[in-house]
Amino acid sequence: MPNGAHALMQTLVNAGVEVCFTNPGTSEMHFVAALDTVQGMRGVLCLFEGVATGAADGYARMADKPAATLLHLGCGLGNGLANLHNARKGKVPVVNIVGDHATYHAPYDAQLQSDIETVARNVSPDFVRTARSPRDLGRDTAETVKAARGLPGQVATLILPADVSWSEGGVAEPGPLIEPPAAADDESVQSIANALAAPAKAAILLGGRALREPALRHAARIAVKLGIPLLAETFPTRLERGAGIPAVERLAYLAEMAGVQMKGLETLVLVDAKAPVSFFAYPGKKSDLVPEGCRVLTLSSPQQDAVASLEKLSRLLDAGNAEPVLAPAVRAGRPRGRKLTAEKVCKAVGHLLPENAILIDEAISSGLMLGKFTAGCPRHDLITLTGGAIGQGLPNAVGAAIACPERRVVALIGDGSAMYTIQALWTLAREQLDVTCVIFNNAAYSVLNVELERVGAAGAGARARAQFDLDRPSLNFAALAQGMGVSASRTAETGDFVRALEAALCRRGPTLIEAIVPPALSGLKLKLLPRLLGAMDGMPLPVARMLKRKLAP
Amino acid sequence: MPNGAHALMQTLVNAGVEVCFTNPGTSEMHFVAALDTVQGMRGVLCLFEGVATGAADGYARMADKPAATLLHLGCGLGNGLANLHNARKGKVPVVNIVGDHATYHAPYDAQLQSDIETVARNVSPDFVRTARSPRDLGRDTAETVKAARGLPGQVATLILPADVSWSEGGVAEPGPLIEPPAAADDESVQSIANALAAPAKAAILLGGRALREPALRHAARIAVKLGIPLLAETFPTRLERGAGIPAVERLAYLAEMAGVQMKGLETLVLVDAKAPVSFFAYPGKKSDLVPEGCRVLTLSSPQQDAVASLEKLSRLLDAGNAEPVLAPAVRAGRPRGRKLTAEKVCKAVGHLLPENAILIDEAISSGLMLGKFTAGCPRHDLITLTGGAIGQGLPNAVGAAIACPERRVVALIGDGSAMYTIQALWTLAREQLDVTCVIFNNAAYSVLNVELERVGAAGAGARARAQFDLDRPSLNFAALAQGMGVSASRTAETGDFVRALEAALCRRGPTLIEAIVPPALSGLKLKLLPRLLGAMDGMPLPVARMLKRKLAP
Repeated sequence: MPNGAHALMQTLVNAGVEVCFTNPGTSEMHFVAALDTVQGMRGVLCLFEGVATGAADGYARMADKPAATLLHLGCGLGNGLANLHNARKGKVPVVNIVGDHATYHAPYDAQLQSDIETVARNVSPDFVRTARSPRDLGRDTAETVKAARGLPGQVATLILPADVSWSEGGVAEPGPLIEPPAAADDESVQSIANALAAPAKAAILLGGRALREPALRHAARIAVKLGIPLLAETFPTRLERGAGIPAVERLAYLAEMAGVQMKGLETLVLVDAKAPVSFFAYPGKKSDLVPEGCRVLTLSSPQQDAVASLEKLSRLLDAGNAEPVLAPAVRAGRPRGRKLTAEKVCKAVGHLLPENAILIDEAISSGLMLGKFTAGCPRHDLITLTGGAIGQGLPNAVGAAIACPERRVVALIGDGSAMYTIQALWTLAREQLDVTCVIFNNAAYSVLNVELERVGAAGAGARARAQFDLDRPSLNFAALAQGMGVSASRTAETGDFVRALEAALCRRGPTLIEAIVPPALSGLKLKLLPRLLGAMDGMPLPVARMLKRKLAP
Repeated sequence: MPNGAHALMQTLVNAGVEVCFTNPGTSEMHFVAALDTVQGMRGVLCLFEGVATGAADGYARMADKPAATLLHLGCGLGNGLANLHNARKGKVPVVNIVGDHATYHAPYDAQLQSDIETVARNVSPDFVRTARSPRDLGRDTAETVKAARGLPGQVATLILPADVSWSEGGVAEPGPLIEPPAAADDESVQSIANALAAPAKAAILLGGRALREPALRHAARIAVKLGIPLLAETFPTRLERGAGIPAVERLAYLAEMAGVQMKGLETLVLVDAKAPVSFFAYPGKKSDLVPEGCRVLTLSSPQQDAVASLEKLSRLLDAGNAEPVLAPAVRAGRPRGRKLTAEKVCKAVGHLLPENAILIDEAISSGLMLGKFTAGCPRHDLITLTGGAIGQGLPNAVGAAIACPERRVVALIGDGSAMYTIQALWTLAREQLDVTCVIFNNAAYSVLNVELERVGAAGAGARARAQFDLDRPSLNFAALAQGMGVSASRTAETGDFVRALEAALCRRGPTLIEAIVPPALSGLKLKLLPRLLGAMDGMPLPVARMLKRKLAP
């Protein structure tokens, strides 16, 4: 009779979970041993749990099914928490397996003993299961996978005591039946059709799975039919975009700019999205970004089928034959001028991005022009920082590349962000993944200099500013990459960068290019920023919109 | 009137908290700004939260007072959790400050919103405070410091919403009064004296603060007087040792070996220690390591004054004039032979360790001979992995060096461990700390190969073993160090290593030496290990003791 671990792993495989991102310890040994006794599970070792969890997130975004993690007790879960948070906020399914001491060992309060469930609740508020017996472990596993995969996707945590894992009597279960989501009901779709047919100024805000092409096409037809804009949430889990795909306008990160985008709206229809709120709170500013008096209507919740709901709405509005506006195929030119800047890096990416690429954007302030320069690239997927916990991008690249071995992954990462989960580079090298990493080294947490101005923290001086400087000592990401077996280069020159990127995109296996660039906002712009942002609200809309385009934090 | 952040920081300074290890974000901006408006707080930037929390741990172990952390929301706390866990298990005081969104922002469920308290409970089960108003923040802060510093030391968490931080009306408080701990009462000391005077075979197990010289001297007199051994817990928070200090025998990590050390004991007296338990559970093995029938008596709990309690016991036993056995001054010789091994690295450290050094041991399997080779070194402090969450050593080195700028820190770290918090190297360089890091690169999670044999995981094959290999690709720690501004070298030769260590110990600022060594246990030894360990219990004691000395996992 197989042990619990065997039953667990066989059930995972039966349920279509075929990759496990691991950082195991002694309490997970029997799970690890099952990698040899069960066919069909690929174990991918990560040197830090945040890499494992971020990889599971990136994998699921691209594979549309979960991977498993394997974490070592409460501390391993802690290390993996930030990227599980990002997955949770992106509604990404993750089967999060956390090893625990044997059940009878817990009362002895050994060194690694801690309350795992209390940590797990942070990222798995709706599903934490502690396995109690090998006999039930197959069922526990099937239910965990089911919880993770059902809509909305979630991080479902299975806590696995070592004795449940090693004891005999495990019974593998078949993969769980996942109920397909339902479309919005006729009545509520009709009421939204009525609202949109009224003369009020309206927009549709798309999020979650409504940012894939099938939903985008329905939404774009509706938008054309009604002459209203299509907005997208600020940080998409996965946005399908590029030439031939309907374009959407992402809401800006800076609340003041998002305010300009939504100015005058009287009706906002949500499709798998939540009503926009400010990323952070600021003294004297509103958290809710929906204009006063604007009606917010939900066409389709994250539990529902966004495509079918949009299709229903399209039918009611007779938009089925409308010609959706598609992004034209337009390549950014090759950037010129000697000195490399963040904008030129983004332009070079737009110039070279290959067909069907997976673009991962954790460039923070340096990536501001990325959307503009890649809008007309061949079709690609864009993955963004859904939960705001930096350190997502490199691990996501690991997972996305494993999910889609035939596609090129291009990950653009800020220097500050890259350092949280830099260990991901080792797994990129170990698995020889086709990932091109671009690190923007501007030697600062640049966005925090922006934020310091915005929050108006009085008295901040040299000691405060020093908390955002990464230049004493300066980081050398090419050396870090080489230390982990990734081929790498660094440059502050435009021509060098473009050539390095060209070469990297043709090369098998991972490459890192370190782009040494100045911060996206100069000191003067930085000082003026709060005043300009503050004034936006009172400006005539066209002026504010122009300023929004110009003002790049 | 000052804002909340100002009051908070002034209260910290008033309470003697003068270092804050930070990794701030937007919600912590006003705290950061207060670094300029309040005198007396040193902000030390870390590029990953696990570095900040581990640094706070190392600082407090050496300064005997807490530092503060500054973490960004629930995700930052998650990233810092593993090293807070180590601090918790070591009873180390940490003032753990976690920024949060503004109170009114929480209901909007913005990207970074999560339940911080549930995570905090894992490491701060007895003190989590969420600040509610700037008026009370000074008092909240004083109470947090008090909770952290009282015995036993703990991680006390203060959650700081951004609006409480930025709003005016803050009132700084004086430092809290910390009650001195009481000694054990006369009656219980008398009963322990009676028990020890009986003919039963007894030992004293020291832990926590009883491993500092004053307690050790009392304990050593008692041990001499009664002719009983002095044991120390396996993973001391801080052990004062070396020539001229009473020697103690640390319990072995491997339960089977600890069993040999305690074999035949009839009375075990605990002084600021808990009864020994197995680190992990193993199929068919006991968790409780105390021999059957052995009485366990507590002289002094972690809440009590171990020195005063031991002094009382010494008086009752009339041991005050006994001559304690002190460790003799014996230097290990210079290691010979071309090929570097982990044992030779430990010997070289014993050969060269400077007076008054702080030795940090997270070498895991490679550090097995460290205790033996450094026992007769000039007096030094030893810091070990108290909670078993690897990634402690390098961050501890940051904190210890800041607490004791006049002392040399020598950190011995396994390759697997080093990768969890490798970002610590940057802070070592930034603060130009006198830290000599030795990384044992044996290209494996070697201890997990040992553990795989011990748990007897049937069926484990190549795929399981691959989960413990760090050799595809091999890590280059010298390159990683250089990438973070730390001067570094790597070698597989004994002579090179000794010379590099000699040079590093004389140099100001940080140095990293990468020692390329084979795993401490060869394949054959590894295979035999479970059988040998299993047989220990039935062996004559002298044979088992000899085997324990020889058998180095």
